[in-house]
Amino acid sequence: MSEPFDAVDVIRTKRDGGAVPEPALRWMIDAYTREYVADAQMASFAMAVLLNGMTRDEIRVMTDAMIASGERMDFSGLGKPTVDKHSTGGVGDKITLPLAPLVASFGVAVPQLSGRGLGHTGGTLDKLESIPGWRAALSNDEMFAQLQDVGAVVCAAGSGLAPADKRLYALRDVTGTVEAIPLIASSIMSKKIAEGTDALVLDVKFGSGAFMQDVEKARELARTMVALGTDSGVATTALLTDMSTPLGLAIGNANEVRESVEVLAGGGPADVVELTVALAREMLALAGRPEADVEGALRNGRAMDAWRAMIRAQDGDPDAPLPTPRETHTVVAEDSGTVRRMEALPFGIAAWRLGAGRARAQDPVVHAAGIDLHVKPGQTVTAGQPLFTLVADDESRFPRALDAVRGAYDIGADLGAASAPLVLERITA
Amino acid sequence: MSEPFDAVDVIRTKRDGGAVPEPALRWMIDAYTREYVADAQMASFAMAVLLNGMTRDEIRVMTDAMIASGERMDFSGLGKPTVDKHSTGGVGDKITLPLAPLVASFGVAVPQLSGRGLGHTGGTLDKLESIPGWRAALSNDEMFAQLQDVGAVVCAAGSGLAPADKRLYALRDVTGTVEAIPLIASSIMSKKIAEGTDALVLDVKFGSGAFMQDVEKARELARTMVALGTDSGVATTALLTDMSTPLGLAIGNANEVRESVEVLAGGGPADVVELTVALAREMLALAGRPEADVEGALRNGRAMDAWRAMIRAQDGDPDAPLPTPRETHTVVAEDSGTVRRMEALPFGIAAWRLGAGRARAQDPVVHAAGIDLHVKPGQTVTAGQPLFTLVADDESRFPRALDAVRGAYDIGADLGAASAPLVLERITA
Repeated sequence: MSEPFDAVDVIRTKRDGGAVPEPALRWMIDAYTREYVADAQMASFAMAVLLNGMTRDEIRVMTDAMIASGERMDFSGLGKPTVDKHSTGGVGDKITLPLAPLVASFGVAVPQLSGRGLGHTGGTLDKLESIPGWRAALSNDEMFAQLQDVGAVVCAAGSGLAPADKRLYALRDVTGTVEAIPLIASSIMSKKIAEGTDALVLDVKFGSGAFMQDVEKARELARTMVALGTDSGVATTALLTDMSTPLGLAIGNANEVRESVEVLAGGGPADVVELTVALAREMLALAGRPEADVEGALRNGRAMDAWRAMIRAQDGDPDAPLPTPRETHTVVAEDSGTVRRMEALPFGIAAWRLGAGRARAQDPVVHAAGIDLHVKPGQTVTAGQPLFTLVADDESRFPRALDAVRGAYDIGADLGAASAPLVLERITA
Repeated sequence: MSEPFDAVDVIRTKRDGGAVPEPALRWMIDAYTREYVADAQMASFAMAVLLNGMTRDEIRVMTDAMIASGERMDFSGLGKPTVDKHSTGGVGDKITLPLAPLVASFGVAVPQLSGRGLGHTGGTLDKLESIPGWRAALSNDEMFAQLQDVGAVVCAAGSGLAPADKRLYALRDVTGTVEAIPLIASSIMSKKIAEGTDALVLDVKFGSGAFMQDVEKARELARTMVALGTDSGVATTALLTDMSTPLGLAIGNANEVRESVEVLAGGGPADVVELTVALAREMLALAGRPEADVEGALRNGRAMDAWRAMIRAQDGDPDAPLPTPRETHTVVAEDSGTVRRMEALPFGIAAWRLGAGRARAQDPVVHAAGIDLHVKPGQTVTAGQPLFTLVADDESRFPRALDAVRGAYDIGADLGAASAPLVLERITA
């Protein structure tokens, strides 16, 4: 009963536009983890943060308090630099799959703790679980050994990292406070910093398929996270990238693994290759390897070797056939013309409805389900040409998926609009 | 599972500065009462209301939904007009005691549902419970009969009125959202409207001893409540009154009853008489009796007769001796001069510490405890003259009460400042 601070005082300070002093803010997070501060109090505080903001220093303190709520990993004994990537998530975003082995092929450790998907954005673990035998759960010792031997690990984050964030994230989800930039930044960064990486590259997306649709908000989030990483001793840069169109041609799980393997084999869709290469260059620069021949590693098989070793180390068979579609439904062009637009969000929702994603955390995903695009914006098509194919385990899923993409693409006269760059800008400390 | 709205959508609308549509807002309050909407969700919503406000229409809908969460009383069968008063609370505020019988003496029904005190502001029921035998709990039938026979009832509000407000008030108290004017207004007015009165006069206080210390905020609250009462079909006016100095000379329970009886006998402190008369005139005007000779009723014993009948109807003995102090401690003037200031809040806190108020809802109060002032600001005193007397059941309470009033009054040269008016302004629809 001898608590040094009062939750109502902390809430009032933020409510009235002030900055919460460091000891009080640390106490608030710690007391919430101990369940002394109630959900209702943290919810009210979160709304005050959303509406009144937080100073750079408050964000650093909050993040540090969330890290202190759990374990902190340490890869300093590896004898090689560690660098990680985080994406704010998008439709068709399989970049981690080719990227982690590509970067690791240069002798850099990539400890990529990932999550499962919820809603219209897929999860990296769901995609990799399409591979027969592959397992997401590793002990800390297994993770360390794999980083030592292979260099790349993509595995599930243990529940010991930033437990305060876990509780706070679930609360924000039901209280309309997900969108608070200081809270998004501290949520993402507390886990990444607790993971013990030396450096971090952020892929902050904007556009209809992104968490932050508005480019200004995405830029603010990127700047906030870069500042926070820097303040916390993690070398951090960010790329602001366009997520108004799905990435690549595959949206789903098994089909995204297939597309990733194409990239590792030196092929694959141009946008996936471009983003993989851009992020790999950022990561390798932070790891002290700015000269690394990233494109060469995709062409000469080094990245593919690292991929196969990474999959095998987690009991996956890189040569096993991936799950194949049971039912397909192909949509064709009604008119001839130029594909002017394919909106990421509706296609993401359609893939989700086909079974590629889940509505509740405990639901399974259908690994073969998803969407294969046959064309991308800017291409010309003739009437009757296939535009995309829906894939599901049950054809009863097609009507609601088709509803989702209705009006999400259009074909017409080429308006000559220059295509937007995929990487809009680079944000550094 | 077929809820028509989603709490997160409602929260987001308010968070983003919009007005919540009527059906969604009604659902939010109803679902909160049913415990479908969680405390954390309502806390986040309350903070959004505090920071972004509510439209006049939203406040009306919210209040109506809170009324609909419980029972609604109906005094239309009485055959006489009903009019009630609500005070936002202050130090030494015993006005209900002389006011209810005074107004009732003109054939008007005054159904005054009251509460107990918490913190530094006293509760009307606590004061009346100083009277031997008097009981606060009445059935609805007893209340109706007493309104018919005597005209005035001061009794405890049943738990059936606006239960949503009860839950929301407890939540606001721990989430830093007490100060939201739309929520204060709907909390007060939902209970008053559910009580079934035809008309209502609000005594909205400002100054150090008031809930709203700032006069601008008090004015905003008064205007909001007058609009809300009017929109809800209850004729409502408000007086904005000064609570920077305690009302009258008695602060406590039994001593406030004594002072009220003095007023009913045609005497009493000038400020208590002034406010009682001002509020009675407002109430009688709303009840269609603008010509009533209010001061005459105090002089000629009519109001006293109504008081005695009201006390007897609730099993109290108006002639029984009131509890008397066990221990007293008198503070005298150190210098000669003019009393320039006596701050309401510190005197209220001192009376609370002496046992006149309670820190937790379940605590008892000490009916004899409190403070008797011997002088008021503006009076001249000579060194050694008694200023006020602390009264308690145990002299161990004196030191902390004296701590509270240290620096709360001063005596010096008369600065010739005009004394502020007790009733600052009248607010009507």
